[in-house]
Parts: sequence; C-alpha cells; structure tokens
Amino acid sequence: MDPVDKIVKIALTEDACLEDVTSRAILPPSLFAEAKITARLVLSGSLPATRAFDMIDPAVSVDFDIDDGAEASDGAVIAELSGPAVSILAGERVALNLLQQLSGVATLTRRFCDAIKGTSAKIVDTRKTVPGMRWLQKQAVVHGGGSNHRMSLADGVLIKDNHIAMAGSITNAVESAKRRAHHLLSVEVEVESLGGVREALEAGADAILLDNMASEMIADAVKLIDGRATVEASGNITLENVLEVAEAGVDLISIGRLTHSASACDISMDFAQP
Amino acid sequence: MDPVDKIVKIALTEDACLEDVTSRAILPPSLFAEAKITARLVLSGSLPATRAFDMIDPAVSVDFDIDDGAEASDGAVIAELSGPAVSILAGERVALNLLQQLSGVATLTRRFCDAIKGTSAKIVDTRKTVPGMRWLQKQAVVHGGGSNHRMSLADGVLIKDNHIAMAGSITNAVESAKRRAHHLLSVEVEVESLGGVREALEAGADAILLDNMASEMIADAVKLIDGRATVEASGNITLENVLEVAEAGVDLISIGRLTHSASACDISMDFAQP
Amino acid sequence: MDPVDKIVKIALTEDACLEDVTSRAILPPSLFAEAKITARLVLSGSLPATRAFDMIDPAVSVDFDIDDGAEASDGAVIAELSGPAVSILAGERVALNLLQQLSGVATLTRRFCDAIKGTSAKIVDTRKTVPGMRWLQKQAVVHGGGSNHRMSLADGVLIKDNHIAMAGSITNAVESAKRRAHHLLSVEVEVESLGGVREALEAGADAILLDNMASEMIADAVKLIDGRATVEASGNITLENVLEVAEAGVDLISIGRLTHSASACDISMDFAQP
Amino acid sequence: MDPVDKIVKIALTEDACLEDVTSRAILPPSLFAEAKITARLVLSGSLPATRAFDMIDPAVSVDFDIDDGAEASDGAVIAELSGPAVSILAGERVALNLLQQLSGVATLTRRFCDAIKGTSAKIVDTRKTVPGMRWLQKQAVVHGGGSNHRMSLADGVLIKDNHIAMAGSITNAVESAKRRAHHLLSVEVEVESLGGVREALEAGADAILLDNMASEMIADAVKLIDGRATVEASGNITLENVLEVAEAGVDLISIGRLTHSASACDISMDFAQP
Amino acid sequence: MDPVDKIVKIALTEDACLEDVTSRAILPPSLFAEAKITARLVLSGSLPATRAFDMIDPAVSVDFDIDDGAEASDGAVIAELSGPAVSILAGERVALNLLQQLSGVATLTRRFCDAIKGTSAKIVDTRKTVPGMRWLQKQAVVHGGGSNHRMSLADGVLIKDNHIAMAGSITNAVESAKRRAHHLLSVEVEVESLGGVREALEAGADAILLDNMASEMIADAVKLIDGRATVEASGNITLENVLEVAEAGVDLISIGRLTHSASACDISMDFAQP
Amino acid sequence: MDPVDKIVKIALTEDACLEDVTSRAILPPSLFAEAKITARLVLSGSLPATRAFDMIDPAVSVDFDIDDGAEASDGAVIAELSGPAVSILAGERVALNLLQQLSGVATLTRRFCDAIKGTSAKIVDTRKTVPGMRWLQKQAVVHGGGSNHRMSLADGVLIKDNHIAMAGSITNAVESAKRRAHHLLSVEVEVESLGGVREALEAGADAILLDNMASEMIADAVKLIDGRATVEASGNITLENVLEVAEAGVDLISIGRLTHSASACDISMDFAQP
Repeated sequence: MDPVDKIVKIALTEDACLEDVTSRAILPPSLFAEAKITARLVLSGSLPATRAFDMIDPAVSVDFDIDDGAEASDGAVIAELSGPAVSILAGERVALNLLQQLSGVATLTRRFCDAIKGTSAKIVDTRKTVPGMRWLQKQAVVHGGGSNHRMSLADGVLIKDNHIAMAGSITNAVESAKRRAHHLLSVEVEVESLGGVREALEAGADAILLDNMASEMIADAVKLIDGRATVEASGNITLENVLEVAEAGVDLISIGRLTHSASACDISMDFAQP
Repeated sequence: MDPVDKIVKIALTEDACLEDVTSRAILPPSLFAEAKITARLVLSGSLPATRAFDMIDPAVSVDFDIDDGAEASDGAVIAELSGPAVSILAGERVALNLLQQLSGVATLTRRFCDAIKGTSAKIVDTRKTVPGMRWLQKQAVVHGGGSNHRMSLADGVLIKDNHIAMAGSITNAVESAKRRAHHLLSVEVEVESLGGVREALEAGADAILLDNMASEMIADAVKLIDGRATVEASGNITLENVLEVAEAGVDLISIGRLTHSASACDISMDFAQP
Repeated sequence: MDPVDKIVKIALTEDACLEDVTSRAILPPSLFAEAKITARLVLSGSLPATRAFDMIDPAVSVDFDIDDGAEASDGAVIAELSGPAVSILAGERVALNLLQQLSGVATLTRRFCDAIKGTSAKIVDTRKTVPGMRWLQKQAVVHGGGSNHRMSLADGVLIKDNHIAMAGSITNAVESAKRRAHHLLSVEVEVESLGGVREALEAGADAILLDNMASEMIADAVKLIDGRATVEASGNITLENVLEVAEAGVDLISIGRLTHSASACDISMDFAQP
Repeated sequence: MDPVDKIVKIALTEDACLEDVTSRAILPPSLFAEAKITARLVLSGSLPATRAFDMIDPAVSVDFDIDDGAEASDGAVIAELSGPAVSILAGERVALNLLQQLSGVATLTRRFCDAIKGTSAKIVDTRKTVPGMRWLQKQAVVHGGGSNHRMSLADGVLIKDNHIAMAGSITNAVESAKRRAHHLLSVEVEVESLGGVREALEAGADAILLDNMASEMIADAVKLIDGRATVEASGNITLENVLEVAEAGVDLISIGRLTHSASACDISMDFAQP
Repeated sequence: MDPVDKIVKIALTEDACLEDVTSRAILPPSLFAEAKITARLVLSGSLPATRAFDMIDPAVSVDFDIDDGAEASDGAVIAELSGPAVSILAGERVALNLLQQLSGVATLTRRFCDAIKGTSAKIVDTRKTVPGMRWLQKQAVVHGGGSNHRMSLADGVLIKDNHIAMAGSITNAVESAKRRAHHLLSVEVEVESLGGVREALEAGADAILLDNMASEMIADAVKLIDGRATVEASGNITLENVLEVAEAGVDLISIGRLTHSASACDISMDFAQP
Repeated sequence: MDPVDKIVKIALTEDACLEDVTSRAILPPSLFAEAKITARLVLSGSLPATRAFDMIDPAVSVDFDIDDGAEASDGAVIAELSGPAVSILAGERVALNLLQQLSGVATLTRRFCDAIKGTSAKIVDTRKTVPGMRWLQKQAVVHGGGSNHRMSLADGVLIKDNHIAMAGSITNAVESAKRRAHHLLSVEVEVESLGGVREALEAGADAILLDNMASEMIADAVKLIDGRATVEASGNITLENVLEVAEAGVDLISIGRLTHSASACDISMDFAQP
C-alpha cells in the first residue's frame, strides 16, 4: 500500500539502513537472531513496522502477537522477529520509531474515548498531523477507537474564521459553498458565538464547529441547533474536561493533540541470547 | 534543498493542497490577503514553511520577523504573509504543522539547555525521530541550542546491548569495530555497569554511553573513564534530573524525548480584515 | 502545479523531446522562429501546453490570445510562440496533443451545456476519464461550462449496483454509509427503478442517481423525490435527448462521454516564414 | 514492465483507490466476491487492467478469457475476477477506464484494417496520442491489426512542413538529415504536391509522406516514386475513403484518429450474487 | 534538461552534499570564496557541473571560460566560480567527478579523430557506456569530434551474433527485421566473414558491421559491399591501428573504449587566497 | 536493495530495454534460450547484473558460478542464463556494462592489493567515483580486496587544501572540526609538508593524509607521527611505486584511479546453439 511504503522508504533512507556500519563491522552477515518487541500501549503501526523489515530484507520474519487496536499491558510481548541479525538491527530503529509514534497516537486516543464512554459523542482527529504521517496517524486514531474527520482539503468543506473574514460573512461563505462545491460534499462552518450558530443554521450549514466554547455555551448551542446540523466541538479539550463537553450533547469532539502532541510509547526490542 | 522539499511536497500532497474545495468555493482567485502568524516558541521550521507556500504559489510572499533559534514570547508576530487568499489558505495547515512540530522540538531542547547552563555538558539528540522528519528535527535541535548525535546508521559506530548480545562481549564488538569500520568513524559502546565501562575502555572504545544509570553511578563512571573516552549519558533524563547528570561530569546528554515526544507549539495565522 | 507538471513530464518523456533527431539534424540551435497555433474549439489546456514548452526550454515564449473556456471560430489564432525553432518543434506535438484532447472535452461539454440552456440542470462529469488525465479533464469540463462530480473515490460516497449486490440491499448500504463515512461526505445511491428511489429515500440518501431511465420514469422519480434529495440522471444521454432529461427536472446530468470519448479538436501550428 | 506500471499507478492515485470511502463504509474487509467483465470489442489493455488490481491487492485474482487482439461479440465475458469485494471495487473504475480506452483504439484500428483487407497497405498510428498513454495506445494499435510508426522523436527522422519552412527547402532539409542523423535512422519527408515528391526523391528521402492529397494525386505520386521510397499517406482518411487510398498503392496509411479520438468501448463489471 | 538533472541529483545525493560535515564544522556559512578550475583536456561536462552547483546553492556563480569541445592545454583555467565557500566545497567533488569522466571521454575521442584525419571515416560510440551516464557520454563523444551510433535498443536495428544464432541465419534475421521493424529504422547486421557480408547484402541489410576483422579483410569487405550498404568496423581498434582501418574505406569505426574505459582527466579546483 | 535498483533501473531506461526493436522484429516471444557469460576478471557486479534481468523479465534465470571477489581466468564461464531469448537479449548490454565496469574496479584493486602483499598497509578508495556508481564501485573495491574510505561528505571529516586556505590555518581548521563535528566522527587533515604534519598533530588530528609526497618524505612523516594518528598516503600512486609507499609505513594508500579510471573488463555473452 502506497502511502505506507512511501513514508517507510523515506524513514529507511534517512536512517541509511543499508549502510549500518556498526552491525556490518561486528557481525557476520549469516548470523541468525531472534528478537522480541515488548511494550505497554494501544498498538498501531504493525503494518509499516513490518514493511520496514520487508524492505530491508525479506528474510526477516515479523509476527505481531496482537492486532492494531489491541492493548498491551506493561512488559507484554507484542511481536516476535527472526532472521539475519544484521537485517533486524538495520531496521530496529525505524520500526520502533513508527510503532512508538503511532501507538502513542492510538493510546492517547483510547484515553479520550474511555473518558467519554457512555455518551453519544465521538472523538475525531484533525488535519494537525505530523508532515508525512497523515494517513498512518489517521489510522492510529481509528485503532485507538476514534473516528476520522476529513482526510485533506479535498474531501469536505470546512469554513473557518479566516475564510469568513475574507468572504465577508458566514452567510456569504456558506451560501457560496453550498452552491459551488460538488453535491457530495457537506458544508461545515466554524463559529465562536451563539450568534454565529444562528447565522450558520440560517445559511444552511450541514455541520457546525463550536470553537473554543465553554461547556455551558456548548450546551446552549446544541439546544439551539436542535438536530438541524451535526455539532462538533473543538479547542482546549483535555482529558479532564472532555466528558463535560460530550455530555453537553455534541456529536463530535475533535482534538488536535491526538496527532500533533501524543507522547511516544516506550517500546523495546531485545535479542534472545544466542 | 532536497530533504526539505521532499517532506514539504509529501505534506502538501497528503493535504491535497491543490484541491482546497472550501476556499475555491467561497473566494475569487484574485482576492488578495495579508496574514500574520503569531506564537510563543523557540522558532524552527521557517525554511520548510516558506517552501510550502512557494510550492503552492510563488505569488505568496512570506517574511519571517525572527530567525530560527530566536524566542518569541506569547502573542508575538513571527511572520507576515501576503498574496492570493486562496493560496495562503491552501498552505496554512501544512505550514503551521511544520512550524508547530519543529518549534516544539526547538522549544523543548532550549528548556533542557537552559537547565544545564554553566556546566560543560551538551544536550544531544538521538535517532528516535518522527519518520520523514529526521533532517528537520535535527536542525530544530540545533535551533534550540542542542547538538547533533550521528545522523543515521552510516556516520558513527554505536554498539548497543543487542549488538553486544550477538557479538558475545563488549570486547569482541569493540575490537571488530575498530578493525573494520573506516578510519574516520569513532566507536562508541553502550554500557549498563561500571564493569562494562572498564571492558569498553580496555577494548579501546572512543566513547562510552552510560545507559540508564543513576547520577552517582554516572559520577563514578566519569571518574573511572578519566578523559580516556567521550562520556554520554542517556535514559530517563527529565528537566528535573538533567542538571544532576550534567554535574556528574558527562560530555553529552542524549534525550529521545526531544524529537519523539515534544509537544507541538501553539501557533495561529490570522488574516487582516480586508 | 503538480498534477499538471507530472503528466506533462510524462508526455515529454514518452515523446523523447530531448532527442528530437529531426530538428537537430536539420536546424542550427540558434535559429529563432515564430509560430501561431490556430484552431476551432472551446479552449482548454493552455496551462499544460505552456508548461510543456517551459520544461523543454524557458527561452520559448508562449502567449495564448484567449483564455481557457473561450471559444475560437475556425482558423482563429489562439496562441503565438517565439523562441529557438528546435525547442518549439520539440514541444509541438506534446503541446498539441494536450490542447486537442482537453479542448475536445471542453468543446463537447459546451455543446451539452448549450443544449440544456434555460433549464436548471447542470452537466457534470464522471470518473470515466482517460488514465493520467483526470485532473486536467475535470478542469476542461469546467472550461466547457459543466460542473464536476466527485474527483475520486475519496471525496464522496456513491453506492452503485455492485455495492448494493454485496451489501444485500439499498437500505443496508445507505445506513452503513451514513453511519460510517465521515460527517462531511454526503451519500448518493444509484437506483434503476422507482422502488429503488423509494428505498433510497427512506434509508436517508442525500442524493439519488437515476441510472439508465427513460425520461418519463425520470420525471416520475423527480416527483417522488420532491426535493428531499439531489437528483442525478445518467446513462445513454446524447445531445439529442439531454434536453428532455433536463426538463424532467433533475439537478445533475452526468455524462461519461465528455471525458472518455470526446473527439480531439483539430489544431495546427504554423511557423511564420523566416 | 515500467511504462505500464507508471501510468497504472498514476491512475490509481488520481482515483484515490486506497481511500474508497464508499466500499469501506459499507462492506466488511473480509467479504469475498466474484465478478465478470463483459463487453463488445477488440480487446486491448488486459495487462494494465490486471496490474491495477495487483497493485491494489495481490489477493484479487484476474483471469482474462480472451487475449489482447481477440474480438468479443456483445455480451461476451472477457474476464473473471475473484477476491476481496472492497479491493475489486477499489480497482473497478481504473481497470475499466484502461480497458475501454485501449480497446477503443484496438477496435477502431480493426475496422480500418478490415476496410483495406486484400490490399498491400498497412494501417499505422501517429504521435497524436493521449498524453501518458503513448506506449499502451501503440500496443493497442498492434492488437487491432495495425502497425506502429515511430514511437517518439528519437527513432526516426520525419521532416514536416514546419521543418521545411525553417530549413529553406526540402532539399536542404533532407540532405542535412541524411548527413547528420545516425546511420540507422531513415529519412522521411512530408510533401503536399507532386513537385514536393520530385524534390524529396532527388534529395534522397527514404520515405515520402503524402499529406492531405486526393486519391488521384496519391496514385500519381505512387507512380512517380516507383518503388524508390516508402510511400505513406495521411490526412482526412476515413473508413469511407481508406480503401481508395490503399488501392492507390501506398505502403502505409497513418491515421491520428486511431489514438486521439477513438470512442471508448462499452464495458461493464458485474458481481455475482453472493 | 531531464537526463542531466537526474544523474546530477543522484551524484549529489550519493555524496551527501547537503551534509558536508567538514565545511560546516570549519567555515562560517557567510564566508565568500572565489575558485578556479584548471585542467588539460578536451572539455565535456560543463552543463552538468554547472547544474551541480545550481542545485546545491543558486548563489554560486559558475563561468566556464571555454566551451564543451574546446581544448585546454596544461594548467589552463577552464572555469571560475564564486559564492559561499561552503556551497562551492559541497559541490566540488561531484562537479569534478562529472568533468573528469566526461572530459576523459571527449579527450580520448579527439585522439581517435585526430588519428584518422583526412580519411572519410567517422569515429562513433557504442552502447558500452557507464550505467547512468549514457546521454552525457554520448554528448562527450560529440564534443570530442566523434559521432553517435544509436542511443538505445529503440532507435536502430542491429543484428548481432546472438540474434543470428537464435534466428537461424543472417538471411532470416535481416528479412524479418526489414519486414517488421518500422519503416524509419534501418537494419544493420554484424558479420565475421566475407561470406557473412555476402549473405547480409543479399538479404537487404542497410548497414554491415565488420566485427573483429583484420584490415586486409576489411578492405576486401569494403570492395565487396561497393557502396550498397553503410560499412562499420568494430573490435580491437586502437590508436595504433585505427588509421589503417579508416584507410580500408569504412564509413564508421565504432569504439567501446571511448565510453567504457576512458581515463579520467586530471582536473583541480583551487580557491583564491582570501 | 535500493541504491542498486535505482542505478539498474536508470541503466535499463537509458537503453530502452522494453523497446528492443531488433529482437522483437526477429524472434518469437516464446523462443527459449540458454547463454553463458565468460570473462577474465576479479568479479564484481553479480547483484546488479542479476537485478537487471529480474526487472526485465522474472522468467530469466541467472546463475553466477563464482562469487563477487573471486577471480576468473581467461575464458572461464562466470554465469549461466536461461529464459526467453528476447528478454536475455534485452538485458544483455546493461548487464555486461555493469559487470565490465565493476569488475574493472575490482580487478584493478586486486592488482594494487597484490602489489603490497606482506605489508601492513591497506588499499582504499576515494570519492572520485563515476556519478551514480558510488555505492557499487565502493563494493567493487571491497571485492577486489581493498577497503573503503568514507562513503560521502557526511561520514568523516577530511580537511583538504581548500578548507585550510579558507580557514586560515591547519590549526584553525582542525580545532573547529574537533569542537563542532559530532563526537563519532574523526578528523583527518591533508598536508603537503612535514611542517604540515607537525601542525596537524599538535592541533589534534586523528588522521593525516600525506598528499603527493615522495616515498622518502612519507617515511619521514611516518616517523614523525609515530603512531599518534592514522597515516594515509595519496597522489600519483601507481602499480610501480605502491610497494615503496606501503613499505614507508603508512596505514592507508588511497587511489582515485581505482574508481575513476579502471579499464572495463572484457566480458562476453554467448548463446548456446538451439
């Protein structure tokens, strides 16, 4: 699969995996090894991690013991590898970098999902992703239990403050978008006040993004909208306040932090004693 | 410059910047806009952010008011843009994604550097980078005041626990490496005990990486090494304990968190009212 | 702009434009020439045609006398070129191939648009495009006066007969799609009977594609739908029957022929006598 | 094979085949399907159509029941597929786009070849191909029973009116070409009158292209040339007049329409009821 | 120009020109330098050498004092550079590698051309080129005064011993080729005896390659052919015997050594004292 | 492996291996052939040569009878091929071009290694490689028995005359480099006199490159250095004088000729009579 292979290839190239001077100086090419990857995380990234080893040396066999989306408690073995030691060592860092980043995203997403369990809201991602990792990070959000927002600028109309400033008004912007975007794209508009909510509704917005509102105002907005548009909340949402926002009745809670600031999971690879 | 343009191009492609259905549906192509980017950060990423707009539309002019490595206090204007509104909007997210990630790395690095000010230790990065961002993240570490460790597997011999396990002993590994790596590459070995330090020194290691040691043991190791090898400390180093480690007398403190888990800086772009 | 440059580059490569043995054997590299392009068409493709010459030799100047979307009657000059004769000759065929294909699309689209003038229906394209030319052909449809349907599989949900067969029923398919596609994507379903129309409406489809229906049945379907969904007609639509379909009250008429079978326009380039 | 894979990859990318929101929202990834492709055509494109499915998912098996170049009468099954339903649906449009375009070329070529059956003339293509499809279209011409003219500017010298205008005369142009092109390239010259034929012959042209001549003049030219050069006719050749041109005694009849304006064949893919 | 830029980019990448640790560690980025390139050679490669610096840093100005094809006697200045010292140093090796290789080809070609001055034979290259350098090496042969043979497998039919072995006989091979290759490609056949020459002539070969024949046999073959085909000699041709071969009356003398074994020219770059 | 496949692909493309007009015109696609490659050489290049056939047609089987680094005396069979004749012929030239170039490098390296047998010096390569072939040529040097110097500008600090000129002095340059290059890179400096040797040693150089010195001066330098730095000799080293240089006591002898001017080995491929 292309977007996976592309970023894996870049990662292998930037780590010069074919010129691993350390392993080549120390170990015979024929030396066979077995290794285990252990970690505490919600797993994501098993596909690109596997592809990293495939690209370096098809003789490395990689078996993940759990699927993307599954949770491993501390110290659990999540994957087992065997093959030429030099090839496993050449791919180790790139594979772990992929796993720790993506599992970090899945793990953080899972915590947000758990925090709102029982409500009807969904946790969704944003376009605030790390350059090059968009597709994989969006998959990681799904592995964590979240849902995706639009993938890119092409698959949804989302009118934000800068658009409104340039278009003159919410009304202008929404009406143009309804008229000119193709008929399979819905129109969402970001608002900062109840007045904005009203204007958006009247202009025919299909979805309304409540930006940086306090929970009470969100609740008021949800009442005002009353099912006439999908309601999304965004801005300053933390593990502490997310339940309050969910209980205010929104459909979607979008969180940039999921992808731009998730901490890497701690993952290690250890070779079996030969 | 190639590694910059490559990742910028991927980021623009994954955001489908040429198919921004929102702006195209709402704004006339000829509409001119001016915008400001404001933030609180140690800046990094001005080059790729500028390239993002260049690639979308050379008619967008981007002027950074501060250089990479400079600090902006809250609300400061860090860049000013002008050009076709649709082009600025098409590149906004990608440019901000680059800036927030890289400035996040620079800002965190700066905090570590500040924490050890006055000691002779240097803060250095690792190969635990986000896939695709290696080169830019390593630059960001320099912008933050840190130094670079090796760039990839090709420009330095670093013998880690898995290598030692496979090679049989520190001695075997170091001696092979000294004999077989080319003469411009030094040999560093990761050790977990004072016994390891002794074996590494005897085998002729040029540098020794003290992995996950407490400060007292680090101090003992530094005494033992006594200038015969470069000393690097790594593992579980936080803003709280980094000074203690530095004062134990090491030359280098390497911190994976700088690149794998820096929080994104908060950066916004606002259009001037037309 | 990337998708343009990519296909232009491929076209130049497949024509081996840098190894034009004829011109190089006959003409001195320094010989300067002026040429005119004349044609009868609705113009599309001025951008890639210009890029073709730019890529071969920036010393060739290309000026289009009319804009994409404008009509040229027989024999009209649509562009003027000047520069090194060998460079103009090297790019001639590729540039004309681009212009004749894309203007063919724009010209055919214009004829369909003219045929329904006065109705409220729009002529739209499909994904039945020539491999490699999707983006440019979709632009050509706009130049011809038509509108775009979705660009790809990613920016709209369109449930077709094969999906329904696999999903078990229209109801199953539409309900899954409404629940699982992201909230900015509308759901359209292709139906072949009034029963299908009814099921689609009840399942909550946002748009309904009437496939291969006769005009009378289309009119019945429009009445049945009664504004509750966007109505698209498709299949066996010709310049002869398109007005009848438009007058049946549909919103969109999609026509594969616009992009898969438009005849190339007749375009020639002639050098001024030196 | 590279030129095939390159265009297939572009086609898959422009259709965003890895982000098929419809199938993914409706069908389980594990659902297995069988499908048949039926059509009326002279087949071309089985290789790129197969490659399209291979690239999406090697688990899709594609079996063509007839070979490229074979004729299918209306409704005949030309290929059978089986594999994951979501993968077949992801590749359906791209595969059909390739088949309908290329079989359109093969089918039109076959009609021209049939029209001149019994004469010694050959139907050949031109460089008037659709950008990106040169190699595949030229194969399609062969599948239709035609022959190829040169592939690009690099594998043959063809002096056209613009070259002659710039070189000063047919004589100048042919003599330079004979002297300066490498010894394995023959020299053909395009002429519009019997005077041109005479001048070309005297200058030593290996082949003469009679451009836009009426059949009587073509017959006169053939007599004049009398075997001393290969004779090609081109311009305004239709299924109605092609036999007349062939009977005038030319060796080659080149037809731009074969590749720039062939109508797409009507091809459909239907899933077996599960 | 594409084939140039592609190989230059690869050369810059394999030399890691953007990570020149030496210059970056020693010199300030702002330091300005002037340098001269001196050499003894027939120049070729000024274009790719210039492109190498352009790609690294457009602020480097490169002026060649002589044109490709001109001769520089020992110690002559062939180019002058100015710009940031770090950028000149980053590109130095790649630029010199290009110049020394290509000028090596041009210089050797010139010596062969000089050796046969006064005869009517031409020195031509072969397809025995260094991988990746075909296009540039063939240009270098022209700069040296030689001519090009076919560029690739696509622009000429050359039947060699292995083809004849598989086709059964020279006659079979030539007749098939004449019938099936397109009409702008001539047919050459490699022969090793006068019998072969006769068979090739009778079969209608347009050119005959005398492989590894002694000068007397070559002279006999030339007489036998008597202008009915182009005559090429190849195999074991040295600066010592090339005149003898030329005087035997052949049209072309092809020499693999020109491109596969030319010695690099000695070229140096020296910085002006600041 | 990437760097191999990249250059092989370029070589196949520049030879237009998919458009071999000769074989396709003469031989049926189904014709099966067996061929042998014979040569006199130290082998290098078996991997890229095998990849060339793999990329053209996986149905070609290629078996090398000897390994890279092994020596074949005149006429020995080094590889056996079988598969479709047209595919073997399509790849023949590219495969032989790779083998003859790389085996040329290995063979010349072997001669230098043999010349210094018994001494403790090593023969090493330089960065004076043929553009695009760096990685393969450096492997060929190893196959010949030599060792590698740094691969690129990124994996070693080598201060040359131009750096010293710009930095002001050897002392300045070495001290900056020691301070600013990362701690796993050693610092080597090129000197032309014993004075330079002294200054380099005092500044703390890890290695010293004696440039263009006579053997006596080299011996003096070795004595002066006395084990405090690695000693490399370079410049004007031939098969005649290399032993003298080795016996002067240097550690490394670097020779540009190995990669920039090795003569191609004579290699042929012959088809078995069918």
